[in-house]
Amino acid sequence: MTTATIPDWVNHVITAPSASAEAEARAHQTQLTKPAGSLGRLESLAVAFAGFQGCVKPTLERIVIRVFAADHGIAAQGTSAYPQEVTAQMLANFCHGGAAVSVLAGLLDADFRAVNLGCVGKVAPHKNLIDNTIASATADFSSAPAMTAERLSAALNAGFAQAQQGDLFIGGEMGIGNTTSAAALLAALFHLAPEAITGKGTGIDEATLARKTQLIGKALKLHRDQLTNPAAILQRLGGFEIAALVGAYIGSAQQGVPVLVDGFISTAAAAIAVALQPTLAPWLLYAHLSNESGHKLALNKLNAQPILALDMRLGEGSGAALAAGVVRQALALHNTMATFADAGVSHAD
Amino acid sequence: MTTATIPDWVNHVITAPSASAEAEARAHQTQLTKPAGSLGRLESLAVAFAGFQGCVKPTLERIVIRVFAADHGIAAQGTSAYPQEVTAQMLANFCHGGAAVSVLAGLLDADFRAVNLGCVGKVAPHKNLIDNTIASATADFSSAPAMTAERLSAALNAGFAQAQQGDLFIGGEMGIGNTTSAAALLAALFHLAPEAITGKGTGIDEATLARKTQLIGKALKLHRDQLTNPAAILQRLGGFEIAALVGAYIGSAQQGVPVLVDGFISTAAAAIAVALQPTLAPWLLYAHLSNESGHKLALNKLNAQPILALDMRLGEGSGAALAAGVVRQALALHNTMATFADAGVSHAD
Repeated sequence: MTTATIPDWVNHVITAPSASAEAEARAHQTQLTKPAGSLGRLESLAVAFAGFQGCVKPTLERIVIRVFAADHGIAAQGTSAYPQEVTAQMLANFCHGGAAVSVLAGLLDADFRAVNLGCVGKVAPHKNLIDNTIASATADFSSAPAMTAERLSAALNAGFAQAQQGDLFIGGEMGIGNTTSAAALLAALFHLAPEAITGKGTGIDEATLARKTQLIGKALKLHRDQLTNPAAILQRLGGFEIAALVGAYIGSAQQGVPVLVDGFISTAAAAIAVALQPTLAPWLLYAHLSNESGHKLALNKLNAQPILALDMRLGEGSGAALAAGVVRQALALHNTMATFADAGVSHAD
Repeated sequence: MTTATIPDWVNHVITAPSASAEAEARAHQTQLTKPAGSLGRLESLAVAFAGFQGCVKPTLERIVIRVFAADHGIAAQGTSAYPQEVTAQMLANFCHGGAAVSVLAGLLDADFRAVNLGCVGKVAPHKNLIDNTIASATADFSSAPAMTAERLSAALNAGFAQAQQGDLFIGGEMGIGNTTSAAALLAALFHLAPEAITGKGTGIDEATLARKTQLIGKALKLHRDQLTNPAAILQRLGGFEIAALVGAYIGSAQQGVPVLVDGFISTAAAAIAVALQPTLAPWLLYAHLSNESGHKLALNKLNAQPILALDMRLGEGSGAALAAGVVRQALALHNTMATFADAGVSHAD
């Protein structure tokens, strides 16, 4: 087993968002007909997008949504409420428009595709499906490394290939067992106790939660000597779809496209991605606080302020797609509200 | 000074939302391709709208937004960061589309009007303006009742007249000094100390906050013997626009139209409205937790769970207009997601 060698593009420094455009946007906000700061988070979102787009009046037109799906060897240990065949079934559901993220992508008029990184079930070809199969599943990380170095590179490259021009990238994920992988990744990266970060995923009972937590503890012990850098952590404990998210996040930001990170699993991908390439951090916005119990801790470790908190715990990019609607409202306010001068409204005393 | 006599319609009992439609919608949610409960608050919003509309698949097409504006005698005491002329200036800005709520109303394709209940400045006629002037301002409630019984009735009726058929009513407010009135109303209604409920409104400094808090304490003492019922509290401490919101909330629910309550001042109106007519309560949804310091306490007193928390503190109905976008997304998911059977996706083990 070789140590993970990651693709070269991971090491490319990402240009920071434009501080001068942010400053201009901040100044513009003070001219709008409202008490200073009274639009709260909507103001900081508009300022952030000004920085991303390098202009004082940014827009959110083209949204790219990619849902990455893959199966997990760890699922054989029974850590999920759903059978493994659901990964392939949901891939078809994403393509046919029946899944939550598909519905929300339609409302946003987003460029939407599902990407199959490899699952146990068979998935029929579809115009919305990108087949990028690496293997039918990762290995069970409680007894072996989840993937080889070659497969890690393939998954990172598959995500990187989906990064493209646009105003916003949203990555979703699907994979029975992937909250187990995400919790293990976060535990290894931030040196957390499995109990602090492991949650109920799709809705397991207390006994299954105890077994899931124990399995993560076992895996952390097994791989202990190798969990010394983010690439090795991802290779040993990750999933193909999580590695693809890492690649898509970094690739998007390299093209100047910000990312709206979804829930618990996406946040684990973001944590690994930022650890691999710290200049990515300012390009990531965090969509929502999930109901998955470890998400708050993971967000705190990243100093991330989620936009929404709607007790969601679905993944797929669904929370990020919801938050994209709020970003659009924020930018419309920033770009089209009247100024005090235009409207003849008096300033504060 | 007579005791407030309120219009008869206030006493009409409001029919409860349909429990059977709620149950059907709840059952429908369990069939959608997602782990049970994983859409969190979006599921409960869809179920609530099923109850409002008495059907399993509710829609949110016609949104009625009315922004009520009026001036406050208490503003003469210097409790706001802005001069009183701003109320009339902002009325014009609402009509011309430059205010935050105007921009958001446009995005929602809402039926939008501003209603002038009486302000010190002059407001030119406009197709989006409804003139319902009662007086140029309320009296300074720190030394006299804010309004006569006749003016209270006029303001309640003005709001009631704006209630109409639709899928959702959003009420906004504007009036320099109206966080002072709202804090006084909430303090009187819930027997709160002025310090617990008084905040910085549009952004006053600590010294002004201390004076504002003191003024509310003085008013509570002055009117003490009369603050024995919600109508008298509203007459003594309220504003024309706040009374109009009370009338519009009750009138909307009487027509089977739910209300998305905005921020701190709207919540004060909701608290008075529910105290006047308790059968209103199930028709009110609370849009957001405002940054105004007393809002959390007021929401707790009403057992209200706000949908958003974006550190906004603008009023105008702006937070409710934002949350209406989330409701639309929730209903689209509820109505168009595939079921497990349709999509051939396996249930939980």
